[in-house]
Amino acid sequence: MATLSANKIKFIRSLSQKKFRDEYGLFVAEGEKMVSEALASGYEVEEIYRADEIGKETMSRISNLSSPSPVLAVIRKQDADQSEFLKNITPSSEGLYLALDGVKDPGNLGTIIRLADWFGIEAIFASPGTVEVYNPKVVQSTMGAIFRKQVIYTELPDLCRKFLSAGLPVYGTFLDGKNMYDSLRQDQKHGLIVMGSESFGISDELRGVIDHKLYIPPYPADSVTSESLNVAIATAIICAEFRRQ
Amino acid sequence: MATLSANKIKFIRSLSQKKFRDEYGLFVAEGEKMVSEALASGYEVEEIYRADEIGKETMSRISNLSSPSPVLAVIRKQDADQSEFLKNITPSSEGLYLALDGVKDPGNLGTIIRLADWFGIEAIFASPGTVEVYNPKVVQSTMGAIFRKQVIYTELPDLCRKFLSAGLPVYGTFLDGKNMYDSLRQDQKHGLIVMGSESFGISDELRGVIDHKLYIPPYPADSVTSESLNVAIATAIICAEFRRQ
Repeated sequence: MATLSANKIKFIRSLSQKKFRDEYGLFVAEGEKMVSEALASGYEVEEIYRADEIGKETMSRISNLSSPSPVLAVIRKQDADQSEFLKNITPSSEGLYLALDGVKDPGNLGTIIRLADWFGIEAIFASPGTVEVYNPKVVQSTMGAIFRKQVIYTELPDLCRKFLSAGLPVYGTFLDGKNMYDSLRQDQKHGLIVMGSESFGISDELRGVIDHKLYIPPYPADSVTSESLNVAIATAIICAEFRRQ
Repeated sequence: MATLSANKIKFIRSLSQKKFRDEYGLFVAEGEKMVSEALASGYEVEEIYRADEIGKETMSRISNLSSPSPVLAVIRKQDADQSEFLKNITPSSEGLYLALDGVKDPGNLGTIIRLADWFGIEAIFASPGTVEVYNPKVVQSTMGAIFRKQVIYTELPDLCRKFLSAGLPVYGTFLDGKNMYDSLRQDQKHGLIVMGSESFGISDELRGVIDHKLYIPPYPADSVTSESLNVAIATAIICAEFRRQ
């Protein structure tokens, strides 16, 4: 067995905290599938540790999982090039984009990245208050999609205005929105979809720059309900409806 | 401050384990919303503990949450009356039902219960290998829907046969299924939808008793992908499509 120094173990463990991920520019991904997707992507994989080399006991000390996987990688973060995406926001843009307004739960963000990959979303924008994309729980719940789909942290009101001034639609879900099946025309497959936070929905500031207010109807459609859907679930239903043939 | 005996604390903590939930027939729900929904439901709420009465320190010892809520309730479990649901499975049944084949992640089950409530699903059946519904993480992620929506643990092959012999459709998602938007007729709003486990999908035994094999297309539809969707996300997309007007 190769040994791992106490300092090395401490260093890898420190990457579970945003402060140290920011300081070193590194993050951790675990599992065979995750590591092979990282290697196949444009991400720089700095170090790979295998339980059969360093021992299961050491692996459980550097792992963020309750059942440590056989392999863990330390990977260099990538800062998404915002201008690269923004320059595509022109009147002829046919892409579909997501914007997340303060999504806090790591599992929700990871699941949204995964489904954005499935549904061919161009890019995911996120407000500065959204959970960080390199949080280990976000990374793991993307199931590898993190290596293919960019998350760009930016001020969302400015972003929405950019879409609007290019003549592109900006959608958002609201309890007083219009039934989405009535309001989405079949040919509408582009623009920006804004999703609110788990606790507060879409902020008042953003509401004013969203020109298509949608509502996912419950069933039966007239059922009186104080309930809501999880933000990842709502995102999936809306993306599926945009992508329906 | 009222004090809580060490034995009482130990007892409440023990309910985080299935073994003790089974032994005492009790489970725990936390948070104002959860507790008020429990009180408004047919569930028997046995005990309520408030942080401002027992102290935050004691609350953090009995809570299953990393940030303990102000209130926690001990509630009597309900065994769903399977025969009550099964007698409704007749040729004239217009209900839509879900069956979960070995869903293991508590957050996924809780999220599915929540969306089943939103989409007016009659009942959720689950294979014996599915995570237990009174697991604290399941309970919390239902956001209260657990008090309105029954989960019935049963052998799924027999259940599917019961639907088929009543002439009702049994749906399931498979990578080699048919594009669901092509195969679902607008008037089909009833039957049983089977969802597979996170790691293994739908078991081979069940495959043979599913007469409508569906596939949720990615976008673009012909994109070559080895990817999949999270089971709760896939369930949401299918339920939304069944309920679309």
